[in-house]
Amino acid sequence: MTEPLDLARLQRRLAAFAAARNWQPYHTPKNLAAALSVEASELVEIFQWLTPEESARVMADPGTAHRVTDEVADVLAYLLQFCDVLGIDPLTALDAKIARNEQRFPAPGPEDGAQDRQLPES
Amino acid sequence: MTEPLDLARLQRRLAAFAAARNWQPYHTPKNLAAALSVEASELVEIFQWLTPEESARVMADPGTAHRVTDEVADVLAYLLQFCDVLGIDPLTALDAKIARNEQRFPAPGPEDGAQDRQLPES
Amino acid sequence: MTEPLDLARLQRRLAAFAAARNWQPYHTPKNLAAALSVEASELVEIFQWLTPEESARVMADPGTAHRVTDEVADVLAYLLQFCDVLGIDPLTALDAKIARNEQRFPAPGPEDGAQDRQLPES
Amino acid sequence: MTEPLDLARLQRRLAAFAAARNWQPYHTPKNLAAALSVEASELVEIFQWLTPEESARVMADPGTAHRVTDEVADVLAYLLQFCDVLGIDPLTALDAKIARNEQRFPAPGPEDGAQDRQLPES
Repeated sequence: MTEPLDLARLQRRLAAFAAARNWQPYHTPKNLAAALSVEASELVEIFQWLTPEESARVMADPGTAHRVTDEVADVLAYLLQFCDVLGIDPLTALDAKIARNEQRFPAPGPEDGAQDRQLPES
Repeated sequence: MTEPLDLARLQRRLAAFAAARNWQPYHTPKNLAAALSVEASELVEIFQWLTPEESARVMADPGTAHRVTDEVADVLAYLLQFCDVLGIDPLTALDAKIARNEQRFPAPGPEDGAQDRQLPES
Repeated sequence: MTEPLDLARLQRRLAAFAAARNWQPYHTPKNLAAALSVEASELVEIFQWLTPEESARVMADPGTAHRVTDEVADVLAYLLQFCDVLGIDPLTALDAKIARNEQRFPAPGPEDGAQDRQLPES
Repeated sequence: MTEPLDLARLQRRLAAFAAARNWQPYHTPKNLAAALSVEASELVEIFQWLTPEESARVMADPGTAHRVTDEVADVLAYLLQFCDVLGIDPLTALDAKIARNEQRFPAPGPEDGAQDRQLPES
C-alpha cells in the first residue's frame, strides 16, 4: 500500500464493502450502535476473569494479542460506519470533547494532596 | 488549531490529560475495555426505543445530535487509550481486518439472487 | 425434579458449582458485572440485524430459540451470582423499583391524548 | 404485602405497568434485549475504576449500595419483560443450563493439581 492509512480512507473502504454486499438496509444507526456495543463486549470478554496485572500482559501471548487486535478493528469499523451514516466526524467530535474535559476536570496543581483522589470521568 | 487533526495527535493529548490527573493506575487494559463498552452502551441507550426510521433522523434534533456526537467522542477516546496502553495501532488493525473480511465475505456477483440474503458479519 | 424451581435454589446450585471448581477468586462483583454485560450483549447480537418484526418471531426457529434461551440462562446465572456475592435480594430490589416507578411514571388517565407519547424509562 | 414475592408475580406487575402506559409497541424483543444490555452496562459503570478489593466493598457505602441494588432491579425487570414477550421461562432455562454445564465442566477431583487452572466458562 502506497498511500498512508487514514480514517477517511478506511471509512470509504468500509462503505464500499457494505455497498457491494447490499448491507446498507441493515446499517441503520440503531443497528450499528448495537453492533458497536456487541464488539466492545467481545473485547471485555477477553479480560473478564483476568486480574489487573494479567490484563496488562495480554499482548505477550500471540493468540490473545491477535484476538484483542481483531476486536479493536471491529469496534473501530462499526464506529466509523456509524459516523458515516450519520455524517459525524469522529476526530472533530473527540477534539471538542477533550477541550470540554480540560474545562470540566482541571489538572491538579503540585500542592494538591494525594488524598483528593479524583476518579476518571464516566 | 493549525495542525490537522489526526488519531495519533488526539491519542497523545488523551495520554497527557490522563497523566496530568494521575489516572494511569486506573487505566489498565481491563478497565479501559469496560469503560469503552459502557460508552458504547450509552450510545445504544439513545436509540433503544426508536424505530429504524426514527434512528436515521437523530441528527435533526440539535440536543440529540449533540448527545450522539458526545458519545462517539467517548467511545473513540477509550478506544485510543486502550490501544495506547497495549501498543496496538488501530488503523493497521482495521486495514488488516478489512482485507481478511474481503476474503471471508466475497461480494456477490450480478447473477446471485436476492434470496441468498447474507447477513452482515458479526 | 420434585421440588419446584425457585431463584434461591438455583442460586445455591450456582454457588456450589463455582465452589467445586474453585472459581470464587474470579467471582468478584466487578468481574461478575462484566460477565453479566457480556452475556447481555450476546443476546443483543442475536437481534442486531433483525427488523422489529423479525425480532418478534425468533422463537419460531428452533436453533435461534435455543440460542436465545441459552443466553437468557447465562444472564440470569451471572445476575444471581452477582447478587449472591453482594448479599442483594433481586426480588426485593425489583419489588421496590416497581413501586418507585409507579410514583415516577403515573399511568395516563383515559382523558390523556395519544400525542403525549411518553417513552419508556431508561 | 401478604403474598410472597416470586418471579411470576413481578413479571405480571411489569406487564401491567407497561400496558397501562401503552409501552407494548416499544417492547419488541430487540429493544428489550438492548435495554437489558444498557442496564447491565450501568452496573459495570459503577465498578469500572475499582480494584477487585474495592469492588467487594461496594455495599458498605449506602449511596453506592442503593445504586447497585437499583441497577440489579433494572436488569431483572428487562430480563423478565424480554422473557414475557417471547414466552421463555427463565427458571427452566437456567435449570437446563446448569445441568448442561455440569456435563461440560466436570468438577475436578481431589487429585487434580492447582496448576490446572480452569477459567470460568464464558
